[in-house]
Amino acid sequence: MWSCVARPTTTWPPVTSAERTFRVGLLGCGTVGAAFEQLLPRHAARVQAITGLRPAISGVLTRAGGAFEAILEDSDLIVELLGGIEPAREYVMRAMDAGRHVVTANKQLLSQYGEELWQLARERGVQLRFEGAVAGVVPVVRVLQESLAGASIDRVHGIVNGTTNFILTEMERTGMTFAQALEEAQRLGYAEADPSEDVDGRDAAAKMAILARLAFDTPVHLSQVHYEGIELIQPDDLEYARELGLGLKLLGTAERLEDGLSVRVHPAFLYPGHPLAAVHGPFNAVTVESDAITEITMSGPGAGGPQTASAVLGDVISAMIPPASTPPTSKNLEIVQDVVSAFYLHLEVADQPGVLAQVAQVLALQAVSVKSVVQKGLGDQARLVMVVHPVLESRFHAAMDLIAGLDVMRAPPRAIRVLEEEFG
Amino acid sequence: MWSCVARPTTTWPPVTSAERTFRVGLLGCGTVGAAFEQLLPRHAARVQAITGLRPAISGVLTRAGGAFEAILEDSDLIVELLGGIEPAREYVMRAMDAGRHVVTANKQLLSQYGEELWQLARERGVQLRFEGAVAGVVPVVRVLQESLAGASIDRVHGIVNGTTNFILTEMERTGMTFAQALEEAQRLGYAEADPSEDVDGRDAAAKMAILARLAFDTPVHLSQVHYEGIELIQPDDLEYARELGLGLKLLGTAERLEDGLSVRVHPAFLYPGHPLAAVHGPFNAVTVESDAITEITMSGPGAGGPQTASAVLGDVISAMIPPASTPPTSKNLEIVQDVVSAFYLHLEVADQPGVLAQVAQVLALQAVSVKSVVQKGLGDQARLVMVVHPVLESRFHAAMDLIAGLDVMRAPPRAIRVLEEEFG
Repeated sequence: MWSCVARPTTTWPPVTSAERTFRVGLLGCGTVGAAFEQLLPRHAARVQAITGLRPAISGVLTRAGGAFEAILEDSDLIVELLGGIEPAREYVMRAMDAGRHVVTANKQLLSQYGEELWQLARERGVQLRFEGAVAGVVPVVRVLQESLAGASIDRVHGIVNGTTNFILTEMERTGMTFAQALEEAQRLGYAEADPSEDVDGRDAAAKMAILARLAFDTPVHLSQVHYEGIELIQPDDLEYARELGLGLKLLGTAERLEDGLSVRVHPAFLYPGHPLAAVHGPFNAVTVESDAITEITMSGPGAGGPQTASAVLGDVISAMIPPASTPPTSKNLEIVQDVVSAFYLHLEVADQPGVLAQVAQVLALQAVSVKSVVQKGLGDQARLVMVVHPVLESRFHAAMDLIAGLDVMRAPPRAIRVLEEEFG
Repeated sequence: MWSCVARPTTTWPPVTSAERTFRVGLLGCGTVGAAFEQLLPRHAARVQAITGLRPAISGVLTRAGGAFEAILEDSDLIVELLGGIEPAREYVMRAMDAGRHVVTANKQLLSQYGEELWQLARERGVQLRFEGAVAGVVPVVRVLQESLAGASIDRVHGIVNGTTNFILTEMERTGMTFAQALEEAQRLGYAEADPSEDVDGRDAAAKMAILARLAFDTPVHLSQVHYEGIELIQPDDLEYARELGLGLKLLGTAERLEDGLSVRVHPAFLYPGHPLAAVHGPFNAVTVESDAITEITMSGPGAGGPQTASAVLGDVISAMIPPASTPPTSKNLEIVQDVVSAFYLHLEVADQPGVLAQVAQVLALQAVSVKSVVQKGLGDQARLVMVVHPVLESRFHAAMDLIAGLDVMRAPPRAIRVLEEEFG
C-alpha cells in the first residue's frame, strides 16, 4: 500500500546551508502521504514567503523501511499519516515528548486516545494539529478551535463520510440498490476494497467524536458514539422519501441536550431547505449552530489524497508560525479590468420585420455569439431576450452601444452577466 | 448611533488583583460594538479556560466621550469598531505602534489602507485581525490566511452583502420591484436607512478587495475593483431568468487570469447546481476554488451585530494565545444515548381489514404520534409508509418491536430518522 521509498534522513533532500530549513519528518506514505510528499516541495517557496522558513521533507518512514528514531532526530515537525492505532500512537507520543510539533490525519487515533495526546501536547508546549482527520479540506477543526472558540455551540451536524454520501446520492439518482451503488463507488475510487468502516458508520462516528470534543469541551470517546450505517437502506425507502419531499443523508450529530451531550451517526431524511440537503456525491459538509451565529455551513470534497494533503499542509504552515500576521505581498499581479463573461440581454424593440436580423448583425460584428433567444410580441412592440456565449466584456459593451443606437429600440438595452459553469 | 456610555479606564470593570486579566479597549459602540460589549463578559470564563487569561473591557470610546490615549494605555488589545477611515486609521496605527494587537471589522479601512496597516503590524510584531470585516461569521479570512495558506488559489466567488441578497431573493420570490424589496429590507432591518453602499456594490467591492489580497498575495485597493449594483434589475429580468433556469446573485469574483488578477462585483445569473445558487435571504457565502482542494464553500448569516461581534471575539481569543493547542476539557457533559427523533416507518403488511388500526394502537401505546401516512395495496399484501412526530428513540424502538411481532407483518419493519427542522 505504501508507495514511497524510505529515505535516510541525512543525505536527502539536498539543502544548501544558506537556507533556513524547516524539517518535516513524514510517517506513512499511502495515498495521503504520497500526495503530501508531492505537494510540499511544490509549495515550499510560497511557504517560505509566509513563514520565513523553507520546509523540506527530512525523512520518510514507510512500511518497507526507515527508522523512526533517525527521522525524529532530524525533524522539527512530524507528519503522521500511518493510520490505525499502533505504531502511530507510540510515534506521536514520542515525537511530542521530544518537543516536536505533530500534524496528523488519524481520526481513529484521536477519537480513542485524543485526551491523552492533547494533554501531552499541552504539557510539552507543542502543537498537535489534525485538520485532515475530519471532513477532508472542509476546515471545520480550525473553525471550531479558533473562529468559534468563544461561541457557545448548540449543535453540529455533519455529512463527514464521502463514500456513503456518494452511495446515497447514486441510489437516489438512479434507483439502484445499496450493493449496486457500492460497486459503482468502488469502481470510481470513492470506496475502498473493504468499505465496512465507511458504510457501517464507524468512520463518521470517529469524526463526530472529534468534532463533539472540540465543540463542547467534553471528552468524547469513539465508544460513546452510537452509530448506524446505510447497508439496510432499500431503494423504495428513497422512492417514498421523494414523494414526501425528503432527501437521505448519513448524518452525524453532536448536540447539547438538557441532560448532557448526544453524539450519534445514522441515516436521516432531510427537508429540502436544510443546509445539508444540497450536499451531493462524495462531498462533505458540516453545519455548526449557536445562538450568536445562528449557523455556519462549510462544504467541500471529502477526503481524497490531494485534498487531505492540502489540509495537512495548512496545519504544517500554522505550526511553523505564530498566529498569522498578514504576510507581505509576495506577488504583484496585474489587476485586470476587461474580462470574459456570458450575458443575458434584454431588448424592447419595435415589432417589425428584420429587427432580430439587425441585432444579430451587430452582435456578430463584435464577435458576440448567441446561445439562446426568446422573442415575444407585445402589440406593436416586441421583447427579445437572449443569452450570449462568453465574450470579452469590452466587445459586449461595444455591441450594446451599437444596439442602443438602433432605430428599432424602444428602451435602453439591459444586460446581466451569466455565470457559465454548471455544477452539481 | 453609539449607545454605550464612555467609561474611564481605571475604575471599571472591577477586577480582583488575583485574576490575570487581558484588557480589551473598545473603540466604537454602534450595533456591533454594543453586541461585543455584551458578548465578552458572557464568555469570559470560557475564554479564560482556553487562554488562561480573563478578558475584560478596560475602556470604551464612544462618539460622546472617552479618551483614546487613556484607553490605549490601559489595554492589551484594541478592538476598532468605529467604521470609516478617520479617526479609525489613526487609532489603529497608534495602537499597533504602541505594541498592541488590533482586531477590527472595518472593511473600508482595510480595502484602502490595508498594506500600510499590515506592514506596520509586521514591523511591530503585533497581530491585526479582521474576520468581522468580511462575510459576517463565515470564517473566510481565517480559512484563506491559515487553512489555505499553502494552496494555490484559482478563484474566489462570494455573496458578501446580505442586504442585496435579501433584496434579490425577495424580488425572485414575490415578483416585487427593486424599490419595493428595498423597502421591505429596511422594514425588517436588513437594509440601513441609507442603503447606497450596499445596493451599488461598493460594500461588496471592499470585501472582495480584502479577500483578493489574501487569496492572491497581491496588493488590491478598493479603487481597482470594478463594481456594479442591483438598482437597475427589473422584475421581468428575474421572470425570464426563471424560464432559463437561472437565479440572480450580486456576485463578487476574484480570479487569476492569464494576464493578471480580476476583482469585480456585479449581478450575475447562476445555474441551479452552483454552490452559491442555494444561498438565499440575508445570507453570505464564499466559494474558494483551487486545484488541490477543488472547492470549499462556506455560508452563514451576513453581518448582524451579534454575528460580527462573535467573529470579533474569535479574533480576540486568537490574539490572546499562541496557535491553538487543544485546551483541556472544561466540561464533563453526560453522553446521552436516548434522544428524540422523528421517524419514517415502512411496513409490509397483510392486506386485510384492521391492520392500520392494530399498528396505530401499538404506536399510541408507546405515545408515538403519526404525522402522515401512505397506504398502498399490492395484491394480498399492503405497504404502509408513515412519518411519525419526534419521540424518544427508546419508545419508538419499543413500538417497533411490538409491531414486528404482529401476525399481519409480512417483513421486518424498517425505520429511518427524519430531521424535523425545516429551513430556507
